[in-house]
Amino acid sequence: MSNLAMQPLDSYSSEDSEQTLFDLYQQVRTASEAICAPLETEDYGIQTMPDVSPPKWHIAHVTWFFEAFVLKPYLKGYRPIDDAYDYLFNSYYQTHGVPYPRAQRGLLSRPGVENVYQFRQHVDIAIADLLSNAPAEHAEEICRRMRLGLHHEQQHQELLVMDIKHILAHNPLNPVYRTDLRTPTEMRAEDLRWQSFPGGIHEIGLSDPSAFGFDNERPRHRRFLEAFALANRPVTNGEYLTFITDGGYARSELWLADGWSRINAEGWNAPLYWRRQDDGWYEMTLGGMRRLDPNAPVCHVSYYEADAYARWAGARLPTEAEWEVAAEGRQVRGNFLEADYLQPVVDQFFDEDEPLQLFGDVWEWTSDAYGAYPGFKPLDGTLGEYNGKFMSGQMVLRGGCCATPESHMRLTYRNFFYPHMRWQFAGLRLAKDV
Amino acid sequence: MSNLAMQPLDSYSSEDSEQTLFDLYQQVRTASEAICAPLETEDYGIQTMPDVSPPKWHIAHVTWFFEAFVLKPYLKGYRPIDDAYDYLFNSYYQTHGVPYPRAQRGLLSRPGVENVYQFRQHVDIAIADLLSNAPAEHAEEICRRMRLGLHHEQQHQELLVMDIKHILAHNPLNPVYRTDLRTPTEMRAEDLRWQSFPGGIHEIGLSDPSAFGFDNERPRHRRFLEAFALANRPVTNGEYLTFITDGGYARSELWLADGWSRINAEGWNAPLYWRRQDDGWYEMTLGGMRRLDPNAPVCHVSYYEADAYARWAGARLPTEAEWEVAAEGRQVRGNFLEADYLQPVVDQFFDEDEPLQLFGDVWEWTSDAYGAYPGFKPLDGTLGEYNGKFMSGQMVLRGGCCATPESHMRLTYRNFFYPHMRWQFAGLRLAKDV
Amino acid sequence: MSNLAMQPLDSYSSEDSEQTLFDLYQQVRTASEAICAPLETEDYGIQTMPDVSPPKWHIAHVTWFFEAFVLKPYLKGYRPIDDAYDYLFNSYYQTHGVPYPRAQRGLLSRPGVENVYQFRQHVDIAIADLLSNAPAEHAEEICRRMRLGLHHEQQHQELLVMDIKHILAHNPLNPVYRTDLRTPTEMRAEDLRWQSFPGGIHEIGLSDPSAFGFDNERPRHRRFLEAFALANRPVTNGEYLTFITDGGYARSELWLADGWSRINAEGWNAPLYWRRQDDGWYEMTLGGMRRLDPNAPVCHVSYYEADAYARWAGARLPTEAEWEVAAEGRQVRGNFLEADYLQPVVDQFFDEDEPLQLFGDVWEWTSDAYGAYPGFKPLDGTLGEYNGKFMSGQMVLRGGCCATPESHMRLTYRNFFYPHMRWQFAGLRLAKDV
Amino acid sequence: MSNLAMQPLDSYSSEDSEQTLFDLYQQVRTASEAICAPLETEDYGIQTMPDVSPPKWHIAHVTWFFEAFVLKPYLKGYRPIDDAYDYLFNSYYQTHGVPYPRAQRGLLSRPGVENVYQFRQHVDIAIADLLSNAPAEHAEEICRRMRLGLHHEQQHQELLVMDIKHILAHNPLNPVYRTDLRTPTEMRAEDLRWQSFPGGIHEIGLSDPSAFGFDNERPRHRRFLEAFALANRPVTNGEYLTFITDGGYARSELWLADGWSRINAEGWNAPLYWRRQDDGWYEMTLGGMRRLDPNAPVCHVSYYEADAYARWAGARLPTEAEWEVAAEGRQVRGNFLEADYLQPVVDQFFDEDEPLQLFGDVWEWTSDAYGAYPGFKPLDGTLGEYNGKFMSGQMVLRGGCCATPESHMRLTYRNFFYPHMRWQFAGLRLAKDV
Repeated sequence: MSNLAMQPLDSYSSEDSEQTLFDLYQQVRTASEAICAPLETEDYGIQTMPDVSPPKWHIAHVTWFFEAFVLKPYLKGYRPIDDAYDYLFNSYYQTHGVPYPRAQRGLLSRPGVENVYQFRQHVDIAIADLLSNAPAEHAEEICRRMRLGLHHEQQHQELLVMDIKHILAHNPLNPVYRTDLRTPTEMRAEDLRWQSFPGGIHEIGLSDPSAFGFDNERPRHRRFLEAFALANRPVTNGEYLTFITDGGYARSELWLADGWSRINAEGWNAPLYWRRQDDGWYEMTLGGMRRLDPNAPVCHVSYYEADAYARWAGARLPTEAEWEVAAEGRQVRGNFLEADYLQPVVDQFFDEDEPLQLFGDVWEWTSDAYGAYPGFKPLDGTLGEYNGKFMSGQMVLRGGCCATPESHMRLTYRNFFYPHMRWQFAGLRLAKDV
Repeated sequence: MSNLAMQPLDSYSSEDSEQTLFDLYQQVRTASEAICAPLETEDYGIQTMPDVSPPKWHIAHVTWFFEAFVLKPYLKGYRPIDDAYDYLFNSYYQTHGVPYPRAQRGLLSRPGVENVYQFRQHVDIAIADLLSNAPAEHAEEICRRMRLGLHHEQQHQELLVMDIKHILAHNPLNPVYRTDLRTPTEMRAEDLRWQSFPGGIHEIGLSDPSAFGFDNERPRHRRFLEAFALANRPVTNGEYLTFITDGGYARSELWLADGWSRINAEGWNAPLYWRRQDDGWYEMTLGGMRRLDPNAPVCHVSYYEADAYARWAGARLPTEAEWEVAAEGRQVRGNFLEADYLQPVVDQFFDEDEPLQLFGDVWEWTSDAYGAYPGFKPLDGTLGEYNGKFMSGQMVLRGGCCATPESHMRLTYRNFFYPHMRWQFAGLRLAKDV
Repeated sequence: MSNLAMQPLDSYSSEDSEQTLFDLYQQVRTASEAICAPLETEDYGIQTMPDVSPPKWHIAHVTWFFEAFVLKPYLKGYRPIDDAYDYLFNSYYQTHGVPYPRAQRGLLSRPGVENVYQFRQHVDIAIADLLSNAPAEHAEEICRRMRLGLHHEQQHQELLVMDIKHILAHNPLNPVYRTDLRTPTEMRAEDLRWQSFPGGIHEIGLSDPSAFGFDNERPRHRRFLEAFALANRPVTNGEYLTFITDGGYARSELWLADGWSRINAEGWNAPLYWRRQDDGWYEMTLGGMRRLDPNAPVCHVSYYEADAYARWAGARLPTEAEWEVAAEGRQVRGNFLEADYLQPVVDQFFDEDEPLQLFGDVWEWTSDAYGAYPGFKPLDGTLGEYNGKFMSGQMVLRGGCCATPESHMRLTYRNFFYPHMRWQFAGLRLAKDV
Repeated sequence: MSNLAMQPLDSYSSEDSEQTLFDLYQQVRTASEAICAPLETEDYGIQTMPDVSPPKWHIAHVTWFFEAFVLKPYLKGYRPIDDAYDYLFNSYYQTHGVPYPRAQRGLLSRPGVENVYQFRQHVDIAIADLLSNAPAEHAEEICRRMRLGLHHEQQHQELLVMDIKHILAHNPLNPVYRTDLRTPTEMRAEDLRWQSFPGGIHEIGLSDPSAFGFDNERPRHRRFLEAFALANRPVTNGEYLTFITDGGYARSELWLADGWSRINAEGWNAPLYWRRQDDGWYEMTLGGMRRLDPNAPVCHVSYYEADAYARWAGARLPTEAEWEVAAEGRQVRGNFLEADYLQPVVDQFFDEDEPLQLFGDVWEWTSDAYGAYPGFKPLDGTLGEYNGKFMSGQMVLRGGCCATPESHMRLTYRNFFYPHMRWQFAGLRLAKDV
């Protein structure tokens, strides 16, 4: 038996090397609950579109992950609190069993919020039990899965923030998630400047075999890049507004064909949460309706909109390799979840050098479709469904956003969404050939 | 000023002639809340299909009805608790304003359950205020609208029961609404017997101008009927099961064309809440999953199924005139909401003579499409939208069911649903030519 | 053996009592082909919506009817020209076999037009053969089915005209079906006058057991009617235009709920083939685009539109019994297919007395849902699917139209369409209580 | 004025340097008509799904291309045969005008087949006129556009073959396109062997500025590749059958998430045109239904199926760079349109060395999403819509197929389809890391 609970978790993130696995577990679990704390019971059950999951479901699903992949295989005598949860809270692991239909997650009043928190507690106790008395022959695998489970829960923390925003913003009452969010001081955005990077063979992806990272970030491999330039900061609301007033949404020549169909079919003429009122543009935020800040990075745009903007601006989106080369060696800090803005802001103190805001604020759309790196190997077994099976039809975004937990982010992190999606905190940074 | 609160309401129902309007108001309002009492907060917000409304919405909408049609026009200085409710809780009164989209009622977490009960209280206080000091010149109209508002709320009591059943039965956990429902003693259903009625000119519809009734029940008018016979009781589960085992759902010649399309497109092969298990048929009820009682009336069948069964049985459905002629002179009593079964049962003590169970247990599909009686006049103004605008595509059902408040029922009451609908407590009684 | 070919067919229509069955067969078959004669080969294959069938399919299906119900059962040694036709050209007779999907009829290039005419010829020869040497024991049934087959083909003649109009009018080139159609002389419509009819017990439906009629017209039976009044002529284009300019399509209080949804979802603001141009309203006709004639009966309106117009006009639609009582004893003549207008016109010489235009011009929507008459018995066997299975969700129309063959029409004829349909030549006549 | 008609077109394809532009024009135009020659008039108008266009439309659209981009800008006094064609036959050039809706191309009976051929002739005459007397200052641009128009028409020749196959195979009569197609002699497929290629910096894309190529093939640029191996031939029907019998379509772990949804939603369990019969598998071909040849390359598989097969086989799909590197220096020859099989076959005489069948037979799915090469510049103006706007959501295929005109193919040619599409002649070749 090994006591994993007290094991230092040096590979989780560089700064927290002193932290033990159980400390970290508690910290991550607590953070999820803190995100939900401002919710009313009624908010927990809403699913405004199939892509959104009810907060209650997230809270249960991340718990299910530990149950399914850690407790059931490794904790002798573990007893589920309710056998049906294995079906209800499986997201998409087909090899684990046919999951409850995604689009119907909002139709479940039971288990209730309280039951779901009991489920969390039930699993937390069992995890504490397992970590204190882990079978030695599985200690390494348990650690590996715990670490994955924690990152998985952090991913869902960001999803919770996104989904809560969608749920509240869909309500005609415009309810405010939190009135005590940090609010940015007014600042001018930096003027747009271009920063050049040399061409040649570069390496991207994760190499250190002991460092945590998803399977899709590996292996580290070489890419040949031509010299390129990157904008010193993301595109701002003010710039995007100029695109709109220049007829951006009405000029077919700026759009990908699929994008043109989409904006016409759904009547898009601005980013997702923008609202035009008599006295100008407003934006629905987690702190309520606010006047649009022209200096802040534009957010909640789809790939189609990012791409159209870049074309209009005479530039293009960066590739993910360009982005990673530009960000290499930077400290992972910025406007993340912990900064408590929950909204992109003008960079204030996060970056010392340009390019600014590579990390945090908004996920930056790249021009790369999400696919396998050369030599990609998915995880074994059911966990192999984690990332690999989504490698079609989606685009890569980089750098994290104001809803991403900071310790969840890495230089090599690859996020991915379908090109029409825009309820995530997604913006863009321009690039161009040199 | 008149004090309407203490006014006896002799025209509401024959038995309660002593009851005052305010007593009655309180009694109806309390009954709605009693139906919701067993719910969890989470149950209040669910909409399992567009036809179903979240219980919270019902509770608010019936309150909105008093606000929109009584308080706003007649209570001087009335202040709404929230102006947005007028939009959110308008069901379908287009001349009152464009209502919030019906299919999205389940996407609203706010106002929460507590807010909705505060809305009720706010309106209750204002109603008490108005009734105690009603402007004399509007006293009569206020009484008329109050009475309509109360019947409206009673209609929604039945809808609440139907919708709660749908919400819970849709949940894979099979939650039980109430464990303390009255349960029927085991009894054999009567053998099927036919009762004949003479042809000739009959009158149907409501005549007494002071009696309450919906506009669609008037005017009383003459119909010529051929002699006909009616079954002594509704079709039972056991009989319907024979239809199923005889291949009823696979024999196209038994079905209306629209019904045949529907059962094939949706894979129907039994009434809505029937569940086949290894040891036979079960039925999801508000008291949980129960073994199917072959003696009880079959319930939760669509018009298509009722019609196909009748054809298979060599009979037909009655017309609404036949039904009303047969029921004329009967006392309105039976297995209604207050009997507290919330499920159709074998008749035990409700009827003295055959035909049994004309009232209560299950709404009986008639072969009549829902339309205007000769000389029909809808109510004036926005309330004219109450009934008349639904006179296309729907079929008439008669007699009330185990979820209908008894004092809401009348001989001349016309209910209507689209022929594919079956989440209401609908069954059938056979008829034939003589 | 009997020679049916030479048998006089006195029961087909009163005037043609001298006509033999084979004469009549040839005449009807020729008429179908005459309707198609102006078509290009390409026109024969188009299906502009699921309700429309390609002309080629009609031509083949009416032939299949004779093959399936006359030749196969009664002509010994009959050999189909292609076994697959029995599947491809079965419309909806489920007990005959699962038909080829209706919505995909426009995807079949083969059999080609020429093949389909060969199929006709093949069947015509076989019918001639059968009629000349009919097995005596089946002579009566063969006659009955032949008569039904001929009326069936006449029904499809009207469908052909409707569908051809839809196919051509859908084409941006606005192709003209025939340039040599008879065109009406300009005339003023009669002023609107009301004609009263007494209440009491009336009989409707078909009684003569030897007369031809569909099963749905029988049995003749009694109805009690209150006294009523009927307009002397159908509603005109000019009157309907006033309804439009009075905001008819924007006033929710005029519309059935289902109608209001439909006109908003599909953006309706005028009858189907009306086209607004800079210099006023035009109408697409089978003779091409023509300036709207304000005196001609309005046509191509749905039940929803007819009902809304009547409400706007302070009147209502007649019941089918009222219509039939008013038309009783009238000669069946009017602007039918043979008049060769293929468009409703101002009555010119068809009627001697008012009410005018009960027959021909436009089918008149009644307020009755299509259902079974008391004592209705569908035909035996597969032919029982002809009418009865459509008795849900549809409304009755009466009187025939400018595309109906005159000899196909009867006083008691009941046509039926769903309330949203309007590609048939449907208009309305006002009624009111007295 | 220049006489372009006689100008040698050395840059069209290397072999035909003697050919003049007008010769080539006539040759390409004739080839399109030859493809349509076996069709019945009725076949020309069918659209079996939105992706398919009626043959008539193709024939007109390629003509429209010359009219819109060559004649209207450069032939003084050019008069269109019908102004409406500019709307009807514009495919997707939004900056040219809003095109007629794609999904409704099958609803147009007019213009008829004959009219469309008249349109062709009208344009052919005008082109001859223009080429003989081209304005000197536009000679170069005219040549450029003519060349593009010819390649455009060749693309549609392949689309014609694909679409004709879909139209005929959808018909229950299983009509045969041509009975005189060349049929392969029976041969065994080569055993699967792997051929290695070295890693390092490679160049792909088109460099020669005078050579014809689409904008999406440029610029030539460097890629770093790891060493890789490619299969010596495409996957065969026999191999794919083993995948099926091994439960390939029922094992979720083999599939991309989008693919798994698709195959379950649409019930796929084999390639598009495979038909299981009692005595084994058959395949619908343009020569009719044929017994499946286990040695021929598998065809009509989607990206999802290709990807799942590769995973099952323990291999992967090649990247487009790997494919191009492997094919570099090979002669472009193989089983193309002119070989007149119109079906992939076992390599017989096309290749001298392995890897076999890189060109022709089946388009080979690569693992690359279709996107811009570094430095990509779309054509100017409306022609910029030709390729660039489709750069999202689609995958690259390489090498051409048995329906591609040989002179249309190039080493650097990039074809693209959505991952679910499979009516094109698409197969796969395995790759793996070394």
